[in-house]
Amino acid sequence: MTVTWGQGGPDLLVALDREAGSLGSQIQDQLRQAIRDQRLSPGERLPSTRRLAELLGIARGTVVEVYEQLLAEGYVESAVGSGTRVAVIPSPGAMAQRASRVPSAPTSSPRPVDFEYGIPDLRSVPLTDWSWAISKATQTLPTAQLGDEDAAGSRHLRDVITAYHRRVRAGCATAEDAVVVSGFRQGLTFALATLARHGIRRIALEDPGPREHDLIAQRAGMEPVPVPVDDQGLNVDRLRESGARAVLLTPAHQCPTGVALGPSRRRDLIAWADQVDGVIVEDDYDAEFRYDRQPVGSLQGLNSARVIALGSVSKTLAPAIRLGWVLAPPQFLHGIVKEKHLSSRGAPGLDQEALALLMETGRFDRHLRRVREIYRARRDVLADEVAHAFGPGRLQGLAAGCHAMLLLPTGSSERAVAQAAASRGVRVNPLGHYRFQTEDAEPLPPALVLGFGNVTEQEIRRGIRGIAEATRG
Amino acid sequence: MTVTWGQGGPDLLVALDREAGSLGSQIQDQLRQAIRDQRLSPGERLPSTRRLAELLGIARGTVVEVYEQLLAEGYVESAVGSGTRVAVIPSPGAMAQRASRVPSAPTSSPRPVDFEYGIPDLRSVPLTDWSWAISKATQTLPTAQLGDEDAAGSRHLRDVITAYHRRVRAGCATAEDAVVVSGFRQGLTFALATLARHGIRRIALEDPGPREHDLIAQRAGMEPVPVPVDDQGLNVDRLRESGARAVLLTPAHQCPTGVALGPSRRRDLIAWADQVDGVIVEDDYDAEFRYDRQPVGSLQGLNSARVIALGSVSKTLAPAIRLGWVLAPPQFLHGIVKEKHLSSRGAPGLDQEALALLMETGRFDRHLRRVREIYRARRDVLADEVAHAFGPGRLQGLAAGCHAMLLLPTGSSERAVAQAAASRGVRVNPLGHYRFQTEDAEPLPPALVLGFGNVTEQEIRRGIRGIAEATRG
Repeated sequence: MTVTWGQGGPDLLVALDREAGSLGSQIQDQLRQAIRDQRLSPGERLPSTRRLAELLGIARGTVVEVYEQLLAEGYVESAVGSGTRVAVIPSPGAMAQRASRVPSAPTSSPRPVDFEYGIPDLRSVPLTDWSWAISKATQTLPTAQLGDEDAAGSRHLRDVITAYHRRVRAGCATAEDAVVVSGFRQGLTFALATLARHGIRRIALEDPGPREHDLIAQRAGMEPVPVPVDDQGLNVDRLRESGARAVLLTPAHQCPTGVALGPSRRRDLIAWADQVDGVIVEDDYDAEFRYDRQPVGSLQGLNSARVIALGSVSKTLAPAIRLGWVLAPPQFLHGIVKEKHLSSRGAPGLDQEALALLMETGRFDRHLRRVREIYRARRDVLADEVAHAFGPGRLQGLAAGCHAMLLLPTGSSERAVAQAAASRGVRVNPLGHYRFQTEDAEPLPPALVLGFGNVTEQEIRRGIRGIAEATRG
Repeated sequence: MTVTWGQGGPDLLVALDREAGSLGSQIQDQLRQAIRDQRLSPGERLPSTRRLAELLGIARGTVVEVYEQLLAEGYVESAVGSGTRVAVIPSPGAMAQRASRVPSAPTSSPRPVDFEYGIPDLRSVPLTDWSWAISKATQTLPTAQLGDEDAAGSRHLRDVITAYHRRVRAGCATAEDAVVVSGFRQGLTFALATLARHGIRRIALEDPGPREHDLIAQRAGMEPVPVPVDDQGLNVDRLRESGARAVLLTPAHQCPTGVALGPSRRRDLIAWADQVDGVIVEDDYDAEFRYDRQPVGSLQGLNSARVIALGSVSKTLAPAIRLGWVLAPPQFLHGIVKEKHLSSRGAPGLDQEALALLMETGRFDRHLRRVREIYRARRDVLADEVAHAFGPGRLQGLAAGCHAMLLLPTGSSERAVAQAAASRGVRVNPLGHYRFQTEDAEPLPPALVLGFGNVTEQEIRRGIRGIAEATRG
């Protein structure tokens, strides 16, 4: 391909805009693009610097700099006596071949009702408080702490979090037992990788239980095995039979059934851990929101030597503030810190300080009190509406948290109902989405999982009516 | 152990402070602690609720609630006809057995000089700008984006980052090619795990090169192999011999030697990748700071189909703002997003929006211009001081970035010099810290790696004098 280098007229390759800043940069960018696009072919000789400077009416020095830069970047080659040529760039950028991935246009009203699990009320996120806390943190955080963090995370935040956990969750950890992480999943990933390194290769998961935890366990090098959940929570007898030496569970408010682990089950679980030299990984999800009485304490407080407790502020503040913690027995702490150091170097220091300030000044508690009332009201609306549409006794797990399970009429297909609801603008997860995928999984009655953290009371009413219609087919 | 339950006088187990909030909580906390400490032994019977209420002079209902709570938490058991007894908690908390890990007291003045590598000037972190940006983000971020993020990260930030990378680093990625991560290491971890899943099991690392990358590669399931670095950067001929199908390198300003990858090496590297169907992982470290001329462009711009480019703001803003990016060819993008989704659910949404605003409004560029001048001045002082103390030609890698390599007199032991410097209050890393640990590693001349990002000009002077003294023994 022969290229016209312009001759007074509009230039094919290089169009200069004398109002738009550095001429050199403009030439550079355009030549680079031309080489990438193969409008300038490999081996093709560029004009001499003198010639191009004349053609473009600019200083020769500018062109010299441009060529040197392109040379340094590998776009052109230069050899004594043969001038400057376009280099052979082995294969052109893949940009042109890429399918365009423009997101589809949003659909119009009515706004669908989304009973997605695990999302707090996003309209209630205490953004003003957070902004205050960040501003304060920029003023008070010692300069040295703007650098790479102490691998376990901010000492200040670890102090504050463990004090909170002792007070609100009846835990017994101190800052020395805590590692700050960027949220629940990161803590889980680090904890499981550490257990795997300690030779613990099989982990029991609740069935039904949180989604994707099987995948996370597998990536950590563990074999996940399902253990059934009943109306007292995880079945510890079945856990014993599983041969696992670790278990991951949601004792405060089981995901997705909503039951709290029963008192005797709690003791049995701890006894199991001692007998098998095992580890309990406690997902302290939804523990902050309990409506009928005080939350049941963290398992960590019962036996800190056997429990790794994981928590985060994704549900209490917002997923967009990504901070969480791992409270771990001493023998696993170093491993978890090492995982963190190598795979992420830690959580944002300013955010950590801001969260510590938020908790320390009572703003965090105040926020929790406020949203607890919002959730309580939504829960009551949900209960009313379900009783009205489906009759009594169909909702399970309402004592705490921001989700409940709706038991569908016997014989209905939860999947068909969820699909029919979706066509009515109501998104809801069938219980099956939370099942372990095994051949011999024990059947459970058809049910839907209703997250009500991020839906208004009006939406709840509309949503439940939509589901009721969907159930009738 | 028999316990006195108090009888009007000061109570052994339960001391109530009637000014200090809920009496029920106080009783609960103290009983819980007593059970944990085994001051109340397993099997021991608690007073009846009526009796304890009398003893403490409080309402019986309060005690009933306390017992119910402790029952729910598994601290006590209750059986018809035998009242309430302390439960058998298999093993007490490990807190008492833990070694106390109180950090040692800081040493007194003079403040040591720390030539640690890779730390930016922490006194220049644009905290006011950051605080502004967070505040703005809390006002402008759409509510839905306070929830779990689109797995690739904020679209806004991906647009802004890739525009920046195209403009400043001569890249050619768009938002569709980008994944937001929490910093370089997280990006590296996700990228390597993805390559391993694609069957790429051997990765070449620079020797000398950044510390701990061999460990990170191993944890991702790869075999790291060393490839020597010379005054043109990574030796591509040796890379060919290594049998690796992936290479991780720092082309803009090699860590720790400070050389930029030469133009012909850049082309050879791309050709190698095409020949072996390989992948170049580009650690775009220090690329923003170049003093003599414009930075050499990113390899990603040369061949986006073969390069995974990693960047972060840890060095341009601060390690405490943990955001980075991965620009990846389409075939690896999904895997990287999946790693991110499963192992962390993403980076903080508010921080992402804040960074986008910082870059978009020109504040980021303004900050870079400001610190570039600071680093340039430090670099000049360093060069002067070293020339004065060691003679000419002893510093390498000063054209860019915030570190340089000091070549020590032949025959000296870099380790001994570093130790002797430390005893003079000057911390510096010997080159050996950056070597690959193999039996047959080729020897390199003795040298020290001097990070000058976070030391003042005065400290540089004092530090170099200390090292010079240390060299003389």
